[in-house]
Amino acid sequence: MRATLMYAAGDVRVENVPDATLDKPTDALVRITRSCICGSDLWPYKSHAAKAGPMRMGHEFVGVVEEVGADVATVKAGDVVVAPFVASDGTCSFCQEGLQTSCRNVSFWGSEGNDGGQGEAVRVPHADGTLVVLGVPADDALMPSLLTLSDVFCTGHHAAVSARVGPGRSVAVVGDGAVGLCGVMAAKRLGAEQIVLLGRHADRTDLGREFGATDVVAVRGREAVEAVRGLTGGDGVHCVLECVGEEASFRTAAKIVRPGGAIGRVGVPQFDSLPGARPSFLRNVTVSGGIAPARAYIEELLGDVLEGRLQPGRVFDRTIALGDTPDGYRAMNEREAIKVLIA
Amino acid sequence: MRATLMYAAGDVRVENVPDATLDKPTDALVRITRSCICGSDLWPYKSHAAKAGPMRMGHEFVGVVEEVGADVATVKAGDVVVAPFVASDGTCSFCQEGLQTSCRNVSFWGSEGNDGGQGEAVRVPHADGTLVVLGVPADDALMPSLLTLSDVFCTGHHAAVSARVGPGRSVAVVGDGAVGLCGVMAAKRLGAEQIVLLGRHADRTDLGREFGATDVVAVRGREAVEAVRGLTGGDGVHCVLECVGEEASFRTAAKIVRPGGAIGRVGVPQFDSLPGARPSFLRNVTVSGGIAPARAYIEELLGDVLEGRLQPGRVFDRTIALGDTPDGYRAMNEREAIKVLIA
Repeated sequence: MRATLMYAAGDVRVENVPDATLDKPTDALVRITRSCICGSDLWPYKSHAAKAGPMRMGHEFVGVVEEVGADVATVKAGDVVVAPFVASDGTCSFCQEGLQTSCRNVSFWGSEGNDGGQGEAVRVPHADGTLVVLGVPADDALMPSLLTLSDVFCTGHHAAVSARVGPGRSVAVVGDGAVGLCGVMAAKRLGAEQIVLLGRHADRTDLGREFGATDVVAVRGREAVEAVRGLTGGDGVHCVLECVGEEASFRTAAKIVRPGGAIGRVGVPQFDSLPGARPSFLRNVTVSGGIAPARAYIEELLGDVLEGRLQPGRVFDRTIALGDTPDGYRAMNEREAIKVLIA
Repeated sequence: MRATLMYAAGDVRVENVPDATLDKPTDALVRITRSCICGSDLWPYKSHAAKAGPMRMGHEFVGVVEEVGADVATVKAGDVVVAPFVASDGTCSFCQEGLQTSCRNVSFWGSEGNDGGQGEAVRVPHADGTLVVLGVPADDALMPSLLTLSDVFCTGHHAAVSARVGPGRSVAVVGDGAVGLCGVMAAKRLGAEQIVLLGRHADRTDLGREFGATDVVAVRGREAVEAVRGLTGGDGVHCVLECVGEEASFRTAAKIVRPGGAIGRVGVPQFDSLPGARPSFLRNVTVSGGIAPARAYIEELLGDVLEGRLQPGRVFDRTIALGDTPDGYRAMNEREAIKVLIA
């Protein structure tokens, strides 16, 4: 089968690899019908060292179950399924409390001998714990939005939950990438009153307005801080969704959050320490979030997508074939595309 | 009147200062009957620069109202009152939501021309918002415990609330100072199942056991991390109360918290950045807390103290006269005393 490999920074290839096959009785074999490229795939695209060897890429996909192991009970051949970006057993104490990213048998796509999502098929470990049956045909028009449940929409939602978004709250979303845009949608869904989107790409922030942003701040740094404070009577916002992961964006988040407010961070941190230990102490700011337990949220968000109330799939603004994945990385890295669908 | 001044690191003096008097119609004049020395007073005791000029000290006191301004409605002459360690107006939006430390008219004892608590009397700004009437005589035997409502017990409680302590939770308290010991008591009060106290002073950890600690870890650093993990099946605790404020203690807190858990920090940070941005992200650790809005908690905690169910005043292990305050600082700084009462 074909799959995507990252050989080095900027060097993505689609190559033949051994076919995915069942290994354990808890596995399922899934033929991938749609996958996509994640903003987090761009970190290795900028930095992966050739000497570390090629990496299998992709952790967001929907597909059709082809075969299941003897112990798999909740999915069967022919089911159309979505997988979260982390595989989990569904039974351990962390899974039971909704933190599947800390599952005692956690398994990451493309690592530890696992297949990646940007390929033709994948062996799914812990199929019962991992997969969610969608109940629609594989070519359903909703499929792009359903695909976002694998990561990007759940990650935006996790940012909103972690930042304690709720009715009447003022919210700022730092970052106008696909996660930030999904964060806007999630914040609106959770009842936020004011949603300020910080981003400098008009095509993206325009979509953000359609997703629910009430204000857009298209400047950075100190100017952005002043703008958000100006929009919030000088206080800052109750909730900040940090959807970038750079130190500068975290600094902005820390300066626009209101005393007693919370930062929900979902941008994979590209820095070692959270700045502002003392100001955040004096202002009682909470810092929460992390890698999103997407599996915990899929059922909750699925209804709004299946019934067409939310269309997070609108973050996909380019569709490519699997063979064109290298160009998809390039396009996302150069910000030609917000998010690239592979179909 | 006499009051305590810090001239420089290690140089504390009790001197005559101008008598406290009413200034604004919202003020009250309170004769101080008991005050105390705070662990946070030891930071300037270690570092205050002489060239910055003398500082009026003390922010924890109980006393008797002598006189009130024309606009004061909730306290009157003769009332026995406790003051939180920050004065607040009680009416602004931050006060209304229980974050009086961010009051729009916040005022700190000893700063901005305010009297300090380690003296004979104090002008209380925003008396209606700040003071709480205790309803017992000034010489009541409960007075040491009631005095802890000004700061140390409320601060320990804030750590526990911020760390999301609740029934069935496992808790670790980093630091066996008076705040940590009060954190143990607060965690037990909130229903924690397991309370691990990290501290190396047997007299303090013995009191911690009486306050509710189920386990004591008397080592530091990596050994402490291993010990706490050993006590919690390898996972770490749901809730960490960081009651020191040093970078090393925060690092310990970050390593003993369970994935999905929370750190409630109340030790004034003596460092600039919170280490471990990436591990805490991968483990979805929440960092919360800060300067405690004691005023928000006094009524809630008062009943348990008045009815004798809780005796946080046991953290006072030495009582001195006002004139001996310099030696009280020395004793606390040299860890001869856990916490010094001035009566």
